[in-house]
This record gives sequence, structure tokens and C-alpha cells, in this order.
Amino acid sequence: MDVMGRSKKSPSQGSKPADASAADGAVGGAVGSDFLQLDIGQAPPGGRIAWLADRLRSAVADGRLPVGTRLPASRVLAEELHVTRGVVTEAYRRLAESGQIAGRGRLGTVVVAAPAAPRSPVRDRPVSGPAPGSPTAGSPAPSVPGSPPPGPAVFRSADREGVVDALRATPCRIDLSPGVPDLAAFPRTAWLRAERAVLAGVGPADFGYGDPRGAPSLRRAVVGWLARNRGIRADPDEVVVVAGVAQALGLLGRLLREEGIHRIAVEDPGSLGARQQLEYGGHALVPVPVDAGGLDVGALRAGGARAVLLTPAHQFPTGVVLDGERRRELLDWAADGKVVIEDDYDAEHRYDRPPVPALRSLMPEGVCYAGSVSKLLAPALRVGWLLVPPDRLDAVVTAKRYADLGNGILTQLVLARLMDSGDLERHLRHVRRRHRRRRDVMLRAVEEYLPGARVHGAAAGLHLMVTFDDDGLRDVDLAAAALERGVKAHPLSWHRIAPGPPGLVLGYAAGPAHEIEEGVAVLGAALRSLPRAR
Amino acid sequence: MDVMGRSKKSPSQGSKPADASAADGAVGGAVGSDFLQLDIGQAPPGGRIAWLADRLRSAVADGRLPVGTRLPASRVLAEELHVTRGVVTEAYRRLAESGQIAGRGRLGTVVVAAPAAPRSPVRDRPVSGPAPGSPTAGSPAPSVPGSPPPGPAVFRSADREGVVDALRATPCRIDLSPGVPDLAAFPRTAWLRAERAVLAGVGPADFGYGDPRGAPSLRRAVVGWLARNRGIRADPDEVVVVAGVAQALGLLGRLLREEGIHRIAVEDPGSLGARQQLEYGGHALVPVPVDAGGLDVGALRAGGARAVLLTPAHQFPTGVVLDGERRRELLDWAADGKVVIEDDYDAEHRYDRPPVPALRSLMPEGVCYAGSVSKLLAPALRVGWLLVPPDRLDAVVTAKRYADLGNGILTQLVLARLMDSGDLERHLRHVRRRHRRRRDVMLRAVEEYLPGARVHGAAAGLHLMVTFDDDGLRDVDLAAAALERGVKAHPLSWHRIAPGPPGLVLGYAAGPAHEIEEGVAVLGAALRSLPRAR
Repeated sequence: MDVMGRSKKSPSQGSKPADASAADGAVGGAVGSDFLQLDIGQAPPGGRIAWLADRLRSAVADGRLPVGTRLPASRVLAEELHVTRGVVTEAYRRLAESGQIAGRGRLGTVVVAAPAAPRSPVRDRPVSGPAPGSPTAGSPAPSVPGSPPPGPAVFRSADREGVVDALRATPCRIDLSPGVPDLAAFPRTAWLRAERAVLAGVGPADFGYGDPRGAPSLRRAVVGWLARNRGIRADPDEVVVVAGVAQALGLLGRLLREEGIHRIAVEDPGSLGARQQLEYGGHALVPVPVDAGGLDVGALRAGGARAVLLTPAHQFPTGVVLDGERRRELLDWAADGKVVIEDDYDAEHRYDRPPVPALRSLMPEGVCYAGSVSKLLAPALRVGWLLVPPDRLDAVVTAKRYADLGNGILTQLVLARLMDSGDLERHLRHVRRRHRRRRDVMLRAVEEYLPGARVHGAAAGLHLMVTFDDDGLRDVDLAAAALERGVKAHPLSWHRIAPGPPGLVLGYAAGPAHEIEEGVAVLGAALRSLPRAR
Repeated sequence: MDVMGRSKKSPSQGSKPADASAADGAVGGAVGSDFLQLDIGQAPPGGRIAWLADRLRSAVADGRLPVGTRLPASRVLAEELHVTRGVVTEAYRRLAESGQIAGRGRLGTVVVAAPAAPRSPVRDRPVSGPAPGSPTAGSPAPSVPGSPPPGPAVFRSADREGVVDALRATPCRIDLSPGVPDLAAFPRTAWLRAERAVLAGVGPADFGYGDPRGAPSLRRAVVGWLARNRGIRADPDEVVVVAGVAQALGLLGRLLREEGIHRIAVEDPGSLGARQQLEYGGHALVPVPVDAGGLDVGALRAGGARAVLLTPAHQFPTGVVLDGERRRELLDWAADGKVVIEDDYDAEHRYDRPPVPALRSLMPEGVCYAGSVSKLLAPALRVGWLLVPPDRLDAVVTAKRYADLGNGILTQLVLARLMDSGDLERHLRHVRRRHRRRRDVMLRAVEEYLPGARVHGAAAGLHLMVTFDDDGLRDVDLAAAALERGVKAHPLSWHRIAPGPPGLVLGYAAGPAHEIEEGVAVLGAALRSLPRAR
């Protein structure tokens, strides 16, 4: 019951919903008291509060009360229903506890999220999830456009395909999913300034079909960025601009298949999304354990795969850094014609000292290197870069050409300006300070609200991994219990192949400190609510 | 010799090079008279003009005189070399004729293009072409980053793989390649205004990982656009935003393979680029003839393919419109579970009457529909849309997700505003008027300079197809001769599978009237320069 007492505070704390439309401050008009044709005569004797809460919850879930709707004042609704005001305020309180509504000060009580599985399609929301009856043979994780977000049920599916997107599509009050930087800090002014300069200076030919490798100015700027921030020396001709690391993995997957490589070693634990990307590309995965030194290169060698995908600068999700000895072992392994794919997804976010140089900086000939602006600026820009050894460059450019003929030009040119002007580095320094403060808030909150949890990883990145010394705990149950309370986090088991201790992967970069603190508090309450923990 | 007399006029006519850097008005500083360590003593007796022209041509070709370089005034160079001024002006005249330099008024004589095959890499230019020694098995058309543009040699390759990109990467003076709208008319002011509004209104969550189908606001705007302009009724949930028709074909190709379809019927003649896209996706192609009524549906049926890609509104490259009877035949064919892929690439550009409705408007259940802003606004934006029948939507969304997790957000949101505000329709009306005038200029020029050519197609689109009643003429030779004179066009045979009369595919939308007229004049001269025509 502690969770209720805690989450009760949330509406008055002014916590913001993660949903975009509500976050924009777009709050719909208040619905009238007849808004749901409520008939109190249907309520069972002595069960008016539960009945009203249930009716409201259903209406939120099935879209009759969409996010942003203002509920009637409790006094007004009580009068209309001929019930005491206490019945309404208690029903509202229950919905607030489960994260569906929130007090918004003088705006009243507003629908902020629909975490319970709704029964009818919700329009125009990111929606996806497993579709058992998909007609497409061999296609994993088809989404179900127009179908409802699965809510906490996403954690109960035995099938992990599509779960990341399904969770992403599920509304919540506080989002502690990993992998997203501080998006509120997006440098809108600098972006618009750069866009104005780009539009003033760009020639008509730049609007035509271009180089599939990307705009020359961005490729030059990326070379400078990688030299300054990642210790990589490269030539602009070696850089292929891609639509994020996801596309880079897709292109490389095709390339490796053409070379006869159908099995790729991956870190375990490691990114579920990256694994799914490779599997969709037709690859079998060979899990390789990760320990405090990073990827176990001996196990990699024993596994017999000819290619490996890894995150050496800041392993996802454990946060460990591939140590010097392992690096030498890995490069030794790779020297024998093997393929190393370096996913350098968040290396710029190191808090205690400069990030370790990229593997690519040590061995340009053997490493396919992928990075992006997703953790620097925003994932929604869909811009990244891929550097491959010279003998694979032609095939990568061909794959990129046939994928989409190249990235969109204006975003590329704006990014080039932001990199060249120093605006992007200023932005990175700015968000790094914010991220570090948020990490410290999360560390303190974990210590307070999850006292039995172990925290892993280096002082870097945008997330923490915590594990629990409780073999009976199922972390998917914990994540489901948290989402029922409006807080989203990744169960560690999602990112595992082999079994291991339960845990959570917690992003701290995206939201403000009070949300982090409240979110971790809700996690603690969710943990205590589970049968094992009682 | 007529071509020389004609092209001699070009520098003084102020024609602009197609190259972006020069088109931007960025003209480099004048090089000094010692710029190439020219030693006139090396010139053979009586061959000073040819020697000087050759030295200059080599310097342009190998990058010592990059595009934008101002040459010394003829008087200055003549003094330095101790030759008469006539030697220098005649050498300059020869380079102007072959399209490498041009008079730019008070800016002097400027290097505008390097159409001859240079001997050393040219940095940071769109470069690609066939690489015979590529290590990638089964990968067609690997580009050769850093290698020189092939110049007119591109037309002499027996292998058509990669030729479109290789031609695109070759500099020229006048570009009559098809498929590019009036890029100088890009609505920069409206774009910047929309971008400002987008940046002011977008919420932090919109910068995160989003819906792989694209931004809801753009999907809604596309639905309105298709209803107003293409007679298509759709729901935003059915629209998948893609990176142009190229990506749409890639996603559909994967889908069809998963359904067990490995052969796709295509129009012959038809787009070489689209064919290459499907072939890269692992499909065998079944050519189907096109006549005055469009695709021969009887031949399609006889070919036995279960899927067809076609351009019904304005066939590429012939320009014919699929007539009513053929439409009914095609829909009858498709009703039997077949797949119709409608590439609606330039249907909005109809000059004599409103465009015919899309096939998709007649049969939403059987038609996969792809369109883009490439011909409306600019190919470099890389934004299009794909509508598929409901039973294929899940698989398409999955394919798009794994391709790149969705298009970049800002371009999508700006486009949505431009569509919703009417700015895009205003722009379309504006460029349609300009395109029509340019088409009329080209028609007159073809009549004057290519008197034996037949013009094909409807009053629509951005290009003309012309054919020649001369079975001995090789249109690739004609295109090569034209490119040697600085004018780029597509030989019709590139877009054919079965042999047929020689011809050219000529884009008229991208450049101003005087370039169109001069370009066609050069084509006429190139035609007369060929052995057969003499």
C-alpha cells in the first residue's frame, strides 16, 4: 500500500505526462458531466467508488476519454451523479494512482495516459506489437497499425519480438526507458539559425538526386567530429551517412550475408533492438558473455562466428568499458579476417574523464564503425554515420543507394553547420552536465528506494543497469507492476539471451530530476507489491 | 562542325554550369599565369594551340584546375607564354566548346566542369560506377568512392549497372537528364517559415524514437493531398512515410519475397533505376511491352508473374497514359490475388487537363501505391509515401522499422505544414506553369534541331521521349557525343529491355529555357557528328 500513498502525491507535484500532445500543453476542453452517460443506478450497493473508477478507467482505455481531456470538477460530477463528493474524489484518486489522470493545477484534472489495455483502436499513435495472425511468413514482429498499445501486457508476452516498439507506444506518466537523451534541451534556436543559413546558401543542384554517401559537407564535418571526440582519423570519402545505427546494422547485415557470413556474435546481455535488427536481416546470433572487462573474447573465439557486434566504449546495458587487454585480444581475433562492428552509440557521454577512443581508431582496417546523433541530439533526426574498411566501402555505398538513395539533404546540411560551428559540441557539454546531475539523482533514488539493488557500469551514458539478488524475482513482473503505476522501464531480461539475475535498465537522461526520483520511488513500491517481495 | 559554331556562343550567352559549387556563384580566385608551370618550349612547331588546349584540359580533368577556378585573362597568359593572344583565345575557345570552361562576364573565364575522364580522384563529388574487381559477390553496381567520374565512357559500358548514378556524378554544362523538377523554384521562404513554426511547436517527445510509419501529422496531410490531387481515399493509419519511391520498392520487394514472389513484371521500356532497385532486392524481372494504350495486359497475363510494377498515370519513359480498357483489364488480372505496384512518380504534372486518378483510387484492396515529393519539390528531401492493402500493412511497417526506424521528423513536420497550409499546392501550380513553358521550348527546339525525331507521350510530366527512325543509330553513341559537348541526356536504350528504335529521354523541367534550347541544339550537332549521320 506504500505505493499508493506515494503515487498519490504525484498529481499535485505537477509531474508531466510523457505523451507529446499533453506535454505540448494542449489540454482539451472539459467534458460535461453527462460525458459518459453514467448511470449510478448500475453501481452495486456499497461499490459506488469502484464502479465509478472502473467506468472512468474503461473510458480512458478505449479512447472515449483521450489523453488531454479535462475531467469535470469533482463537485460538479458529484452533483450530477447524486453521490457525495468523496465518492468522486476517491475514484479520481485511484485513477491518479494508476497513472491515467493527473491534477494540472488550475487546468483541473486531466487524462494523461492510458496504460491499461484499451479495447478499441487508438488513432495516430505509435502503435505496434506482435500480431499472431500475420500473413507474412518469416517476418518477425509485425506491428499492428491501428491496434491498441498493449500496456503492461507487453511484459507478459513470452515472445520478445516487437516488445520494444510496443512499450514505446504505450503511454505512461514517467518514462525511464533507456536510450533517449534530454530532448527538452534540443537546440531549437541554433537549429533554426543553421537552417536559415543552409536555405540561403544551398544551390539548386543540392536539391536533386545526390551522392548516396551523403552530403560532402556533412561527411567532412563528421570526420572532424570523430577526430575531436572519438580519436578516429578518417577521410570524408570513407564516411557513409546513414539513417541511424539501425540502418547501419541493416546495411552491414546485407553485406555480411553477401560475403557468406550468416552468424553474428553479440554481447549477452546486449541490446535487444540491435539483435532484432540483425535477425530481421537473416542472421543467426551467437551470444557471448559480458563481464567486468567487457566482451569475453575467449568465448567469442570459441563461438566460431566470423563477425561480432559490440559496444566497447560503454557496453549496453551493463555499462562496462572494454578493457585494454580485451581490446588487444579482440583486435588479435579480428586480424584473422574477422569483422568487428563497433556500435559507438553513446560514447560521448562520459562523465568522469574523456571517453576511451573508439576501436576503429586502433584498427581502421578491421572495424566497421557506426555512430549517430540519436544520443547527442535526438533519435528522431535519424542521422548517423558508418565507416567501414576500404574493401567493403563499395558494397556499403551500393546497399545505401538501394536502401533509399541517401539521407535527406536539409537535415544533413544543418547538422554539418552545427558540427562545424561548434554548436553541437556546446550542446553536448550542456546536456552532459544535465545528464550527470540526473544520473546522480537516480543513483541517490536507487539507494533510497531500491536498497537491495546493485548498480553497474561506468560513469557514462544515459542509463543505469541495476540487478537484484533475488532469483525468484521476475523482472518482467516488476516492469509490469511499475507500468501499471505509470512508470516505464526495461526489464533486464529483455536484453539477455542466457538467463541471469533479474534487473532493470533505467534511462535517466530524458526527464527532469523530480520525475527520476518519483519514477524510482514507484519502482520501489512496485517491487514491494510483488508476491515474492511481500 | 556545326556544333562547334553553335557551342562557341555558349560562354557569352552566360549559360550556367550544372555544378553546384559554381552555380552558387562561388567562383575561386584567378590563378596566376604560372599556374601550371607551362613551358611553351614543349609545344610542337605549329601545334601551340593544340598543345595549350591539351595542357589546360588535362589540368581541368585531373583536378589541378578545379571547378570554379578563374583562368588568367587571355592577354595576360599570352604575355607570360610569349605567344600571340590568338593562341590563347583559340585554346580557351576549344575548352569552352567541350564544356570545361565558360565565360562568366566580368568574372572572366571560369572552369565549370570536367567532362573528360580525369586521372586522379576528385574529392567530395558524387561518384560511383562499376567496379569490376569488387569483392562483394552478388552485389550489383558497386560504386567507386573516390574514383573519377567516368564521363562519356559511361555510355560505352556494356554493363548497365550503376550507369544512372555514374552519369549523375559526371559534371556537365547542361543537364537534360529526366526526373528532376525545377529545383531553383524550391520554396525556401515557405520552408523556413514552416520550419520555424515546427520548431516552436514540437514537443520533446517528438524528438524521441517515433512511429516507424511516420509522423501522424504528415500521414494526415498526405491523405488530404492524395484525396485532392489523386482521387485516393485513405486513412492516415494506412499511410507509411518512406524515403522516396526507391525505398518503397525496396520494402515491397522484401515483402513479396517473403510471400514467395520472386519475379516481378515491369514495363518495357521502363525505368532503369526502378528495375535495378528490384533486382538488387533479389527479383527476376519479366518485361512487358508498352504501346500507345500503356502496359500490354495480355502480355502481362501471358508472362505469368504474380506482381507488376507500372507507371499508369504517365508511363516512364514513353509518357503514355494507361487507357480505360487497360485499367479494367489490369484490375481484372489483379483481382485474382495478384499484386499491382503503382509508381505514381509525376502524376501531378499534367498540363492539358487534371491528371487521371490513381489506380489505387479504383482498387484500394489490390494496389500498392507509391508517391513522393521528389517531383513536387525536390528529390533530395527523400520523402515519399506508400499505401498498401490492409493485409500487407503489418509487414510493410515492420520492414520500414527495420530499415531505419522511420523517416527523420523535422522534414516530415515541415512537409505536413506545407501540405496543410496550401503552400505545396501553390508551389505545384507555380512550377507546373514553368514546366509547361519549358516543355514548349523543348518541343520547338526538338522540331528545329532534331527534325527527324518523333516525340512521344502525353502533355504531362517532366520529360519527353524522342525516337529516331534510324536503325543504325546507337543512342548511347549519341548520348556520349552530346556529353563530350557538355550536354547530358539519357539514351532510351538504357530504359529498354527488349531492343527497339533508338531514342533519348530528355528532361525539360530543371533548367531555364535558354539551356533547353542550347542543349537540344547540341544534341542535334552531336547527332550529325556521328558516323552514321554523316
